[in-house]
Amino acid sequence: MRKKVAILAGDGIGPEITAEAVKVLTALQEHWGLDWVMESGLIGGAAYDATGTPLPDDTLALAQDSDAILLGAVGGPKWETLDISIRPEKGLLGIRSALQLFANLRPAILYPQLVGASTLKPEVVSGLDIMIVRELTGGIYFGQPRGVQRLENGEREGFNTLVYKESEIRRIAQVAFTIAMKRGRRVCSVDKANVLESTELWREVVNEVAKEFPEVELSHMYVDNAAMQLVRAPKQFDVLVTTNMFGDILSDCAAMLTGSIGMLPSASLDQSGKGMYEPIHGSAPDIAGQGIANPLATILSVAMMLRYSLNESAPATCLEKAVGTVLDRGLRTPDIYSPGMSQVSTGAMGDAVVEAL
Amino acid sequence: MRKKVAILAGDGIGPEITAEAVKVLTALQEHWGLDWVMESGLIGGAAYDATGTPLPDDTLALAQDSDAILLGAVGGPKWETLDISIRPEKGLLGIRSALQLFANLRPAILYPQLVGASTLKPEVVSGLDIMIVRELTGGIYFGQPRGVQRLENGEREGFNTLVYKESEIRRIAQVAFTIAMKRGRRVCSVDKANVLESTELWREVVNEVAKEFPEVELSHMYVDNAAMQLVRAPKQFDVLVTTNMFGDILSDCAAMLTGSIGMLPSASLDQSGKGMYEPIHGSAPDIAGQGIANPLATILSVAMMLRYSLNESAPATCLEKAVGTVLDRGLRTPDIYSPGMSQVSTGAMGDAVVEAL
Ligand SMILES: CC(C)[C@H](C(=O)O)[C@@H](O)C(=O)O
Ligand SMILES: CC(C)[C@H](C(=O)O)[C@@H](O)C(=O)O
Repeated sequence: MRKKVAILAGDGIGPEITAEAVKVLTALQEHWGLDWVMESGLIGGAAYDATGTPLPDDTLALAQDSDAILLGAVGGPKWETLDISIRPEKGLLGIRSALQLFANLRPAILYPQLVGASTLKPEVVSGLDIMIVRELTGGIYFGQPRGVQRLENGEREGFNTLVYKESEIRRIAQVAFTIAMKRGRRVCSVDKANVLESTELWREVVNEVAKEFPEVELSHMYVDNAAMQLVRAPKQFDVLVTTNMFGDILSDCAAMLTGSIGMLPSASLDQSGKGMYEPIHGSAPDIAGQGIANPLATILSVAMMLRYSLNESAPATCLEKAVGTVLDRGLRTPDIYSPGMSQVSTGAMGDAVVEAL
Repeated sequence: MRKKVAILAGDGIGPEITAEAVKVLTALQEHWGLDWVMESGLIGGAAYDATGTPLPDDTLALAQDSDAILLGAVGGPKWETLDISIRPEKGLLGIRSALQLFANLRPAILYPQLVGASTLKPEVVSGLDIMIVRELTGGIYFGQPRGVQRLENGEREGFNTLVYKESEIRRIAQVAFTIAMKRGRRVCSVDKANVLESTELWREVVNEVAKEFPEVELSHMYVDNAAMQLVRAPKQFDVLVTTNMFGDILSDCAAMLTGSIGMLPSASLDQSGKGMYEPIHGSAPDIAGQGIANPLATILSVAMMLRYSLNESAPATCLEKAVGTVLDRGLRTPDIYSPGMSQVSTGAMGDAVVEAL
């Protein structure tokens, strides 16, 4: 059956960067004789403006009906005053939850060509290659009860619930160990088991899952220490696995260690390998529409899509190599520009990758 | 009335480093004619081993009865298998809560003598001086309900509650703005208001408090972005104010930017200025008893104690200068040692500070 890829451009620089990824997807079809149909849908603020909801039924149906989803980015100051329930972010959270995309893979890789972009000393970060596995459909992001209530004394109280079931912990731990088997065979599980009972259970279940993977070395770290260790000696990590909220924070911290978040893709997978792919950076409304956004994170998200959802690992590797070639040629969007390199636009960068394919 | 200072050494390197701080407190009394009595109590794993609880009634009574508390550090692998309710950490959390020490001040300062210790490039961190104001007696650390329950299908589920009342948010925001008035007059409040209702309320209340401080510039940042910005450009911050859990993570990250967490003190204050003072580093059981721990974070905690709880700001400044002198003389414990400097023991470092006073 013909595969289907949903393209959800979203807000800010989303449309510009997904346009480049679509160029790449099209070129891949031509060169490799691959076959999928691409269909676009609205999400986030763009969907809210057009339909009054950040996740229209059409878009959800399209996502459910696709083998893979490419997402640009959502959100922006324009919608920050909206109620949480209809903000652009709810579109993203709604798809994650409805499709049970529980496994969020966020590689933090430093490209050798870009080592100077990091704020860390080269010896601390050169060769950095961490895979952060973040639980994405549970925890405090989705826990009930939640909201704001009025107390008897008249003041308001806001509350959220951090909740994890054994089965939710088990499946994300299994993903982390499986990935570790294909990498450095080390998993570090991050929790706050000295304070939070929910993450004490997390630690217990991860320990149980570890027994299924005797070749993988497991360690545990408290989240505050993990934040320190990422800054102190990030290369000590191979695979990090953690909760939704801790993963949100630590993966952004890890990404920034590379100094080039315009380069980093991500995948959000369900149990069967269906997934949503997106750059880890945001919608950057401040630079939207200027043709200066870096499309490489989105293009590298296409490579992850090929590998994890479309089962085409040869073209994925080829695409990753093409990105390397373009960097070797010295092409840089402004975010990764350094003296002596050639500054190019979003579109020119996409074209260069297509050419290098 | 004669003031009272409680000394709670705790676990690991706690006893060694507090011994040096006591030397300093004693010397200050002699040189400045200051007058307080010091009394020791058990806490953490040491208290658990001796009495079966990490916070004996005696210790709590001592803390309640004191004007200020000096704490070493608690915890260690020895007690990690204990139930959360009796772990060493509960001693610390118990005092924080019982004494309502809601305002945790964690400076992240880079000493010019130690700029090389940072893993970040000198231009990114030199001159770094951030004050992190962390809410310490609320949020998910203390929220009810919490625990692990069995679901109908037989699996376990762990849960914790993140909860903030307006009044809790208001008082910590007021502390942050008040401190900002004495510094750079900028406050950045960190939340996850795009996902968590409790922190949407946080943002609202911080905005209200800001009106009482028209001279202070307020900004808001999502926690994931804050983790990135700390790595990307930490000097953009003056005062950061945030929740208990986010503060735990971000303050450790910020501390590590300096590369010398053995240098960083902290204060935990109640509404009246009574407080507990402790180094931000942990109990470091791996180096305990070897005389190589850095006592300067604990000694600098004494300086904070003088300033915030004992109302002796002249000796506080003098003590901070003494620490600077010792660093200028090239004395270094192993954690901050670099070639060309003189390596000294915990005790020799304490003696040197006393001498420099
Ligand atoms: C936009 C926001 C809801 C989202 C999250 O917090 O998960 C983003 O920060 C991310 O990490 O994908
Ligand atoms: C020991 C632990 C309970 C504590 C905390 O999480 O608050 C520590 O990490 C700290 O930051 O003081």
